[in-house]
Amino acid sequence: MSDKLDANENIINETNPFENHIRLTSKYELNNAVQPLLTDLYQISMAYAYWKNQKNDNAVFDLFFRKNPFQGEYTVFAGLEDCLKYIQNFKFSTSDIDYLRTAMPQYVEDEFFVYLENMNLNDIQIYALREGSLVFPRIPIMRIEGPLPIVQLLETTLLVLVNYASLVTTNASRFRLAAGEFKNLLEFGLRRAQGPDGGLGASKYCYIGGFDGTSNVLAGKLYSIPIRGTHAHSFVSSYNDLSDLHDRTLKSVVSDEMFDLANLSMDYLTQLEKFEFNFSLNEANRGELAAFIGYAIAFPSDFLALVDTYNVLKSGVPNFCAVALALHKVGYRAKGIRLDSGDLAYLSNKVRDFFKKVAKVFQLDFFESLTIVASNDINEDILHSLNMQGHSIDSFGIGTHLVTCQKQPALGCVFKLVEVNGRPCVKLSEDVQKATFPGKKNAYRLYDKEGIPLVDLLTRSDEDEPKVGEAFLCRHPFIETKRAYLSPSKVENLLVPVWINGKLVQENMDSIDGIRERVRKQLNRLRNDHKRMLNPTPYKITVSRTLYDFIHNLWLDYTPIGELK
Amino acid sequence: MSDKLDANENIINETNPFENHIRLTSKYELNNAVQPLLTDLYQISMAYAYWKNQKNDNAVFDLFFRKNPFQGEYTVFAGLEDCLKYIQNFKFSTSDIDYLRTAMPQYVEDEFFVYLENMNLNDIQIYALREGSLVFPRIPIMRIEGPLPIVQLLETTLLVLVNYASLVTTNASRFRLAAGEFKNLLEFGLRRAQGPDGGLGASKYCYIGGFDGTSNVLAGKLYSIPIRGTHAHSFVSSYNDLSDLHDRTLKSVVSDEMFDLANLSMDYLTQLEKFEFNFSLNEANRGELAAFIGYAIAFPSDFLALVDTYNVLKSGVPNFCAVALALHKVGYRAKGIRLDSGDLAYLSNKVRDFFKKVAKVFQLDFFESLTIVASNDINEDILHSLNMQGHSIDSFGIGTHLVTCQKQPALGCVFKLVEVNGRPCVKLSEDVQKATFPGKKNAYRLYDKEGIPLVDLLTRSDEDEPKVGEAFLCRHPFIETKRAYLSPSKVENLLVPVWINGKLVQENMDSIDGIRERVRKQLNRLRNDHKRMLNPTPYKITVSRTLYDFIHNLWLDYTPIGELK
Repeated sequence: MSDKLDANENIINETNPFENHIRLTSKYELNNAVQPLLTDLYQISMAYAYWKNQKNDNAVFDLFFRKNPFQGEYTVFAGLEDCLKYIQNFKFSTSDIDYLRTAMPQYVEDEFFVYLENMNLNDIQIYALREGSLVFPRIPIMRIEGPLPIVQLLETTLLVLVNYASLVTTNASRFRLAAGEFKNLLEFGLRRAQGPDGGLGASKYCYIGGFDGTSNVLAGKLYSIPIRGTHAHSFVSSYNDLSDLHDRTLKSVVSDEMFDLANLSMDYLTQLEKFEFNFSLNEANRGELAAFIGYAIAFPSDFLALVDTYNVLKSGVPNFCAVALALHKVGYRAKGIRLDSGDLAYLSNKVRDFFKKVAKVFQLDFFESLTIVASNDINEDILHSLNMQGHSIDSFGIGTHLVTCQKQPALGCVFKLVEVNGRPCVKLSEDVQKATFPGKKNAYRLYDKEGIPLVDLLTRSDEDEPKVGEAFLCRHPFIETKRAYLSPSKVENLLVPVWINGKLVQENMDSIDGIRERVRKQLNRLRNDHKRMLNPTPYKITVSRTLYDFIHNLWLDYTPIGELK
Repeated sequence: MSDKLDANENIINETNPFENHIRLTSKYELNNAVQPLLTDLYQISMAYAYWKNQKNDNAVFDLFFRKNPFQGEYTVFAGLEDCLKYIQNFKFSTSDIDYLRTAMPQYVEDEFFVYLENMNLNDIQIYALREGSLVFPRIPIMRIEGPLPIVQLLETTLLVLVNYASLVTTNASRFRLAAGEFKNLLEFGLRRAQGPDGGLGASKYCYIGGFDGTSNVLAGKLYSIPIRGTHAHSFVSSYNDLSDLHDRTLKSVVSDEMFDLANLSMDYLTQLEKFEFNFSLNEANRGELAAFIGYAIAFPSDFLALVDTYNVLKSGVPNFCAVALALHKVGYRAKGIRLDSGDLAYLSNKVRDFFKKVAKVFQLDFFESLTIVASNDINEDILHSLNMQGHSIDSFGIGTHLVTCQKQPALGCVFKLVEVNGRPCVKLSEDVQKATFPGKKNAYRLYDKEGIPLVDLLTRSDEDEPKVGEAFLCRHPFIETKRAYLSPSKVENLLVPVWINGKLVQENMDSIDGIRERVRKQLNRLRNDHKRMLNPTPYKITVSRTLYDFIHNLWLDYTPIGELK
């Protein structure tokens, strides 16, 4: 993979005049929707109010969420590369400025638009978790520092780039946990995604979250992800009978002999009927047989047939086996079948029995282990249910529920101001759980001697960091009686620099496969009780003694003594 | 609006050499992700198998869904313009072909790629519902006819363009029904959307579905949709006290007199405290007051303040009223406030009482009807609940649940082959409800004399169409005993030509505002029992006697006589 990336980088170097370029995972540029105007109007209104009041303070914002998605207890952070592409290309175009002049009130001063047009991100500093890291509620995923009006302008775009990427990566990782390490997982969701880009993002981030490939060809082209697919029901129903085959011959793998695949397949179908496979020649649809033969002639080394257009056990599977036996005669091995309806546990077991019987009758061992793909509205719960029932599926094609994150279609990342010119900023609101942790902070992950994460720890940015082998008091952020001394065997500083003084920090960027591997490793190391399906144990988020006192004193200072409502 | 569109068209004409161009709603081109490779790999695999077998049959496909979303009984069709832009620009690029050569098996014949590279859509005929029409299960939304391999290649992209557009438009229309005709509805969902394009699409289609505007600036630029917004909590918390104001003055509307808005506001705050508005000067946060003054100086004619950063009734509203009174002194009228947390019914009523008291005490009637905007995780159910409780909200800012369609994040449109070379195609599958209606069909909507839709009717394409004033036997498609003679006062042929022989049918294209108006009118005409929230009555889909017999005979022909399982 690293070779491939390097190749792409070279291509970019040739066409990209910027000295400082990101490790793009692709040589093809997308998405042109990601630009400074992809934001909420109020960001620009606020920029004007700040500008008008000459309020160019140094501000620190935290990007974080308050609750893990899917009733789970972990989240995978993804979208960093997309954020940094946006940061790198941040520039209001002339047509943007023209549009804003018409869209904002007429009394907005003209110099403001000059200010916008000249805006750049050279004074912005961004620290972030490495992409693909596990992240937990209230830990800053990104910490962004710089002139208040400018950092404020980044909010919406960063949120839209992080929210869905992290949500769908997390979702994919949960499907992977449910399916187990050895099943093949394919993302088939493009047609049901929330728009073209939702589909593209899903394909990329499901791969990062642990899927093996996608049906989405453009995602394959853009991100070098494996693409997979066979044929649809329409392919089968477009054939009426064997006379629809214009060319029925296939050349032997080992000699120049030409075989009539249609005749061979009909012979095997007749044999299968005689061996009591519980179907009759009459029941096996001849259009379906013709379609399978046509497909096998086109893809002799990759024959995988959709078998539920008419009837799986009476038609689809007998027809598939007839063609697979014929292919074998010519020197090719069929791949397997796909089920797209019905009771997947029951049918997959019945199909496996059928395959085993064919293996025995025809003395062809490979038939026993032909691939069975299933793809009918599968979600995480169905994967768990299939595991409990027992099934014979090797590979899952998963679409709608995966890409739209049906269980929870949005992640609630927010972007909160925590410090202005060194002064902590507080937001309380009417809902206590919406209160923010003020002040510029550092974030650490403390590990035990087996390399298992113990807790995450937030400190004030000017505190000493926790040290390996030294006891550090970690406090629950809300409950004063919950606290413990921890002596970590390893301390990880979670927030690493990614954009400093207008330059990308290359060494903290990763390839798509590097990110995918980080997800896999970190999930492996996370304790099982944090990952289980039902009522998982929350992973502990703690604060230092200093930060605890700082936060609670500020909250008290800012709260009017009122009613107990 | 039509003027604006014409202006845009002229701009396109200058740069677009195609004689036949679509009524683009924007002069800015998006989305570059929509291209022939935005498809599932199996479409290209099938194209190869068809090509290899010289199977260039004339095929008819129906695009339809089986179930209305959101437990409702109607769907709004949207996305047609996006589909036709894709159709118009359909062309495999050289880099697409290069990629496919590497991604497909090596034995795929080279001439196939030449075939793909030369492919065009001149032989494709597309009939569709007018965009913004109501549509019901199993009615073909689009009927596409042409060479089998080519039409098959369009499937995934058309589905992704129709599915989310129709889903989110339908969702927005349901929010509109819940909020009532006279509330102001604003879409604020960008940051939680499923990717940048999900956000853009949501903004466009929520407007079409009945929203009044969006916060999404790029959507405003691209689609000429009204954009709206004020400021965030961070704006408030970035101010510490009145000393953060660099310029406190505002010029009078009527004279050259300069006013110190900070002093004026403090004066009014002191007066408010004295008039027993149940807060103390001490409780009203001075940083919040400074922020409001700063914002009012920047936007004196558009002052709308977010009042829940610290405490709505003790700080936010008193501070807002102080600044609004000061603005009035200088000659400006404030707009109102926004609530983003807490019990919205309770708080909005309390705020309204506050405003009414100010109106009375200061003899300023307009204060009574200042705008109250609410925007905290609002969904359709919450709108209904607020209506039942009673509230004083004028305007709703709605994000997450609207744009991600939390109640059901995907619409299940499918694309099914129904006819090849005049022969009907059947797909049965293991699930009966997945069976398709074979054959090329026409679709009609029959109206009563008040212009209310009675039923939708499917016929075979070669049947006579139902006529005004003549009784026509309409049958339930599945239940043989359900049938009725209907004598319509109006008959609408639902499927109109939109792409014929490589040309767009301009007269069946609509402006974005035309589509929006169609949604509004058609929903108004639909009977209330089809629209109600709880257990709505299904709108009747019927088939002609001829089509009924045709379908049922085919289903029987294709079903093996098996077990009753």
